[in-house]
Amino acid sequence: MKQIAILGFGIVGGGIPTVLTESAEQIRRTVGDGVDVKYILDLRDFPDSPYGDRVIRSIDTILADPEIEAVCEAMGGLRPAYEFTAACLKAGKSVVTSNKELVSEKGGELLALARENGGAYLFEGSVGGGIPLIRPFLTSFAGERVKEAAGIVNGTTNYILTAMQSGRSFEDTLREAQALGYAEREPSADVDGIDAKRKIMILTSLCSGILPDAADVYAEGIRDVTVSDMEGAKKAGGTLRLIAKTVTGERGVSAGVCPMIVPAAHPLSGVNGVYNAVSLTLPATGDILYYGRGAGRLPTAAALVSDLCAVLSGAAGAERLPDFEKKPAGTLVPFESLPTDAYVRTGLPSAEAEEILAAAADSVERLDGGGSEFVLRGCSVPQVKGLLPDARIIRILR
Amino acid sequence: MKQIAILGFGIVGGGIPTVLTESAEQIRRTVGDGVDVKYILDLRDFPDSPYGDRVIRSIDTILADPEIEAVCEAMGGLRPAYEFTAACLKAGKSVVTSNKELVSEKGGELLALARENGGAYLFEGSVGGGIPLIRPFLTSFAGERVKEAAGIVNGTTNYILTAMQSGRSFEDTLREAQALGYAEREPSADVDGIDAKRKIMILTSLCSGILPDAADVYAEGIRDVTVSDMEGAKKAGGTLRLIAKTVTGERGVSAGVCPMIVPAAHPLSGVNGVYNAVSLTLPATGDILYYGRGAGRLPTAAALVSDLCAVLSGAAGAERLPDFEKKPAGTLVPFESLPTDAYVRTGLPSAEAEEILAAAADSVERLDGGGSEFVLRGCSVPQVKGLLPDARIIRILR
Repeated sequence: MKQIAILGFGIVGGGIPTVLTESAEQIRRTVGDGVDVKYILDLRDFPDSPYGDRVIRSIDTILADPEIEAVCEAMGGLRPAYEFTAACLKAGKSVVTSNKELVSEKGGELLALARENGGAYLFEGSVGGGIPLIRPFLTSFAGERVKEAAGIVNGTTNYILTAMQSGRSFEDTLREAQALGYAEREPSADVDGIDAKRKIMILTSLCSGILPDAADVYAEGIRDVTVSDMEGAKKAGGTLRLIAKTVTGERGVSAGVCPMIVPAAHPLSGVNGVYNAVSLTLPATGDILYYGRGAGRLPTAAALVSDLCAVLSGAAGAERLPDFEKKPAGTLVPFESLPTDAYVRTGLPSAEAEEILAAAADSVERLDGGGSEFVLRGCSVPQVKGLLPDARIIRILR
Repeated sequence: MKQIAILGFGIVGGGIPTVLTESAEQIRRTVGDGVDVKYILDLRDFPDSPYGDRVIRSIDTILADPEIEAVCEAMGGLRPAYEFTAACLKAGKSVVTSNKELVSEKGGELLALARENGGAYLFEGSVGGGIPLIRPFLTSFAGERVKEAAGIVNGTTNYILTAMQSGRSFEDTLREAQALGYAEREPSADVDGIDAKRKIMILTSLCSGILPDAADVYAEGIRDVTVSDMEGAKKAGGTLRLIAKTVTGERGVSAGVCPMIVPAAHPLSGVNGVYNAVSLTLPATGDILYYGRGAGRLPTAAALVSDLCAVLSGAAGAERLPDFEKKPAGTLVPFESLPTDAYVRTGLPSAEAEEILAAAADSVERLDGGGSEFVLRGCSVPQVKGLLPDARIIRILR
């Protein structure tokens, strides 16, 4: 029997024993042995849990136990998850995690520690919850560099934006999402794009090998999205979504998060509610898309268990851990400066606005339906902002 | 430098050197060495190709060369691909392939040969072309059994059905697909569901461990699909697609291919043209979907190269090869007998038809718009056929 430890027995950590039990037969087939939880590191007691007697208070118990080969870090947050993960890796253990904050901040350093000490640091659960999205970068795409990734990686904001399509306000749908447990009482990490930014930092590293400084990654949330924006998106032939995007181009690497209009023909346009999806562009394979539940107790726990199986079966040991080279601020090409298509709405008379915009885009198309609304192809958002400081500008995903 | 051999220098085989060259840097990073093509086994000469001098006529040259660790089989067809693959595996070499006919017929035997001789038999390119769909079964889902797979796995028929949505006939759109090179002059393998059947046999094996006898897998193509069927699908709230499906349930395993109505809210409903997509249902992870180009020279070659990288980097050696236990006819639960939702159109007066159908379904809903058309929930297609032999019955995907 293989023994593991769980750090943090909250929503996700508490789901791990469930997945281990329900998939015990398949796990035994993969690992070649059963898997049992020996320790749970948590400050709380769990008298009603069948695992209550395995709760410990000190990481040292885990570090000192040679029986523990793999540790599931499900604490979240930077500290003490960082110190505990580093200590486990230094002790030659492998760590699997869903902690996007830690991976996006310290992933480079922790991957290097894993390599030096002969362990693995795996984080399938950190982006896209249960969608098996990260492992393909280590295995399936081994022969190709992913040039571009664009996705809906935050279920809370996607739920809100989907609900807003029926004409409701941001505040109204946020309250509903909070009542349903899809949004936190303090919703900033979701609605201000912070969570999505962490995830696109991780995807940027997987695509380019560069772990960007947080200051280099553009992030704009959905607090300012209005009913008029949703209607404008419809007139422009799409739906408004919070999109996280990273591009490796000739000028370098860019990454950012912002509300974008997804054209109806784009495979991301049908992604509604709490679902997540990520579209990848590869040189030979072309465009592929992954879709599924981006969060939730069991899907995320299943992602941790899949990484656990990779460690315990020996498969992870034969895979190359990715390079996450931490770069200082100023390394990335600013996301805002990338040429884009955009929807523009202004209070100016449309003939006047059209004349001004013509100087800032390859083409300007005036939208039907009353207002002074346009679709620009091949424009620079900062330039349009400079020309029309009061205009509402929303990027259109290509 | 690692040396490989390619069997068959046609569309896909000819794309392999292109992918090896264009992704050389990334491949070197993964494999830890460069990869070069030493032999190309083909009966033709290629005087204009830079690889023309590597063409050989006998598999024995490859079998006798200890420098060749991995072989790409891109011949297609059962023979001699079967004999050549078996010989390579017996010689301790690994084989990667896109040959769905061979994998669906002899996959169990060839996987066993690979295991016995310490090699790998990998077939990412056999289903979904460039979509990295098979490797996740060996790596990402290692902790879970996939209970159900449903997909659009044939690009030719999807192109035809997408074009038929604008009211055109099957014959008309087939001719167009042939003119564009999407369909063969002899289109039977595609339009009669034979190609999709091979692919669902492979997916059935990956899901359940059972490689079914071809006689156990239901297959119905799209030759009989009419403009009225397309309109009926729309009235029933969906689009008509050729769906390949496999289910592992309490009664056992079922697999089949047939035209189905995909409801608009289903993630498969937006899959148009030559694209492919496969939706998987896992116990803890829930539903996930893979989407991408299901065929084509470079996407399929890229899938072969990704398998090649897994072999040459040593990663494949640490993964468990799947079990494909070949079962005799009669093992599977007949696909036709599975309870389903269905669209039914009949020449009978609707009141009369509704009365008859009420005995065969959990619920019967009459569709608006003139004809005698119904949506049945929870029915058995053979039973409905027995009651209304002249009715048109189309399954609805749940």
